[in-house]
Amino acid sequence: MTALPLALTMGEPAGVGAEITGKAWQALRTSGPAFFFLGDPDALQGIPTRPIAAPDEAAGVFAQALPVLTQRLPRTPRLGHPDPANASAVIGSIRAAVRHCLEGRAAGVVTNPIQKSVLTAAGFRHPGHTEFLGELAGTGHPPVMLLACPGLRVVPVTVHMALAAAARSLTTAMILDQGRIVAAALRQDFGIARPRIVLAGLNPHAGEAGTMGREDIEVVAPAVAALRSEGIDARGPLPADTLFTPRARTTYDCALCMYHDQALIPVKTLDMDGGVNVTLGLRIVRTSPDHGTALDIAGTGQAEAGSLIAALRLAAEIAESRSRGSTP
Amino acid sequence: MTALPLALTMGEPAGVGAEITGKAWQALRTSGPAFFFLGDPDALQGIPTRPIAAPDEAAGVFAQALPVLTQRLPRTPRLGHPDPANASAVIGSIRAAVRHCLEGRAAGVVTNPIQKSVLTAAGFRHPGHTEFLGELAGTGHPPVMLLACPGLRVVPVTVHMALAAAARSLTTAMILDQGRIVAAALRQDFGIARPRIVLAGLNPHAGEAGTMGREDIEVVAPAVAALRSEGIDARGPLPADTLFTPRARTTYDCALCMYHDQALIPVKTLDMDGGVNVTLGLRIVRTSPDHGTALDIAGTGQAEAGSLIAALRLAAEIAESRSRGSTP
Repeated sequence: MTALPLALTMGEPAGVGAEITGKAWQALRTSGPAFFFLGDPDALQGIPTRPIAAPDEAAGVFAQALPVLTQRLPRTPRLGHPDPANASAVIGSIRAAVRHCLEGRAAGVVTNPIQKSVLTAAGFRHPGHTEFLGELAGTGHPPVMLLACPGLRVVPVTVHMALAAAARSLTTAMILDQGRIVAAALRQDFGIARPRIVLAGLNPHAGEAGTMGREDIEVVAPAVAALRSEGIDARGPLPADTLFTPRARTTYDCALCMYHDQALIPVKTLDMDGGVNVTLGLRIVRTSPDHGTALDIAGTGQAEAGSLIAALRLAAEIAESRSRGSTP
Repeated sequence: MTALPLALTMGEPAGVGAEITGKAWQALRTSGPAFFFLGDPDALQGIPTRPIAAPDEAAGVFAQALPVLTQRLPRTPRLGHPDPANASAVIGSIRAAVRHCLEGRAAGVVTNPIQKSVLTAAGFRHPGHTEFLGELAGTGHPPVMLLACPGLRVVPVTVHMALAAAARSLTTAMILDQGRIVAAALRQDFGIARPRIVLAGLNPHAGEAGTMGREDIEVVAPAVAALRSEGIDARGPLPADTLFTPRARTTYDCALCMYHDQALIPVKTLDMDGGVNVTLGLRIVRTSPDHGTALDIAGTGQAEAGSLIAALRLAAEIAESRSRGSTP
């Protein structure tokens, strides 16, 4: 049986999405994984495209042309200048990709970057992609954002909130919930039989025995103890500054970080172009490049497709790992 | 005229200080920079040592043996087990090194790591090395900690405090003061004629126009504007997660970070062993390795001297740059 194709959303039409989609197709057309684009074929310049009527046509077409499930844009995009008139098409592309996945026609959803401010102006009520996907294909738990690059996986337990609010809102239950989802995903999606999870301390030096903040003792440590009592190989809280050294990175499979920048700084310091964003805790496989719409370089030909290519490959690997796990 | 030697303190006698001192001498004995050790020669095993009576004897001795200005320890150290009985000798070594520097007999102070908890138990009242040095050789401003590794320099504006406290205590005046000290040091100590400084946002995405915290607008941005009005090439606040990518790192000479881990994570992610801690805003040159006493591996021969070697080299470079600057 041929593996199902991946569904790639259009993302912001004024951004680099179309350009990196074309480059990713060029890079993957012979090796795969096969994917189809949910968007306007007119946006894809310089590569052959082929309209398809359904996802199951994608694999047969992929080596010759990029398969497109056509979703026309109401306005021709001006690169670098997002137009709220296209917002509903952007959102529709995400909805359709998720539906193909939930209904068994696509192996996973890979999303091109969106311009949140433009969608918000057009009535989009979600803080971002991840939360929207949680509504479309959630499991009852808030979705968990995992960032992966070669040699490092991180999860920010709190994400898009002010730093002071992140420190205040952190709870043992939240860390524990995400730790469980991460442990399950490392087994099911990444094929790691006994995942090793480390938890970064919130405060410098993980609070140095409570002399620099009590949260590591009162909030983080109990979550580590609870994870361990469930048989999960969890360690921490550990000082965040020494947690991402080349040597330290070999000692765990995923680092749970307490706030956005603690997780994203090491990944982007190492390798911006190969970083992938994976959403855990959904009923579908979902990855995305770990960069934005790059409006400043849209249309210049400079956009690098490395992160999108890595996102497509990782989505296929996760889908494959899940299907192996579910085969008796 | 022969360049002045560097003064290297003993650091915690139960830690890796003696071992990395010996390795650093082996690495630098022919190339320099010359340094002398302020400590107990009995602690230095496996390398030739030579007692000296004054720093000016160090350069002549250095190629043959490590010059030692003897400071006996009251108790023979047990590696891995710090003894408060030796605390006064540890502190005395720092005081003596600073004195040799202030009185023009040493080019700079390089400090081996100390075990703060042991010194505190023995009555040491300072949060760390840096604050103690501020008392011994300060300039009226609080000293500024700069971390340098190949290709990256960072300064944490707040240092050893809980994350929530760091967010609360950040002020425009504090950022401005440190920005000025950093700009001056990049010129005087690092020989950069027109230093480019970037300021990291406190909040994720630098607050995303105030939707994730107001501090970046109300506290950080005014400091950037003030620095610019003084002719300093400062930019920011910029999102911290994308500030340390390989590409971004080429666009500035130093990143001012708002809290400890924001600054230290990227440096240690890149290169733990070549990282150097530099104290700016002192009347003397001071560097140190960016690691601790490593009590767990003391005496095993595994300690890597890369960071201490880099600290010695950088101290000599800074001293040289300052002396060039002060020569008419």
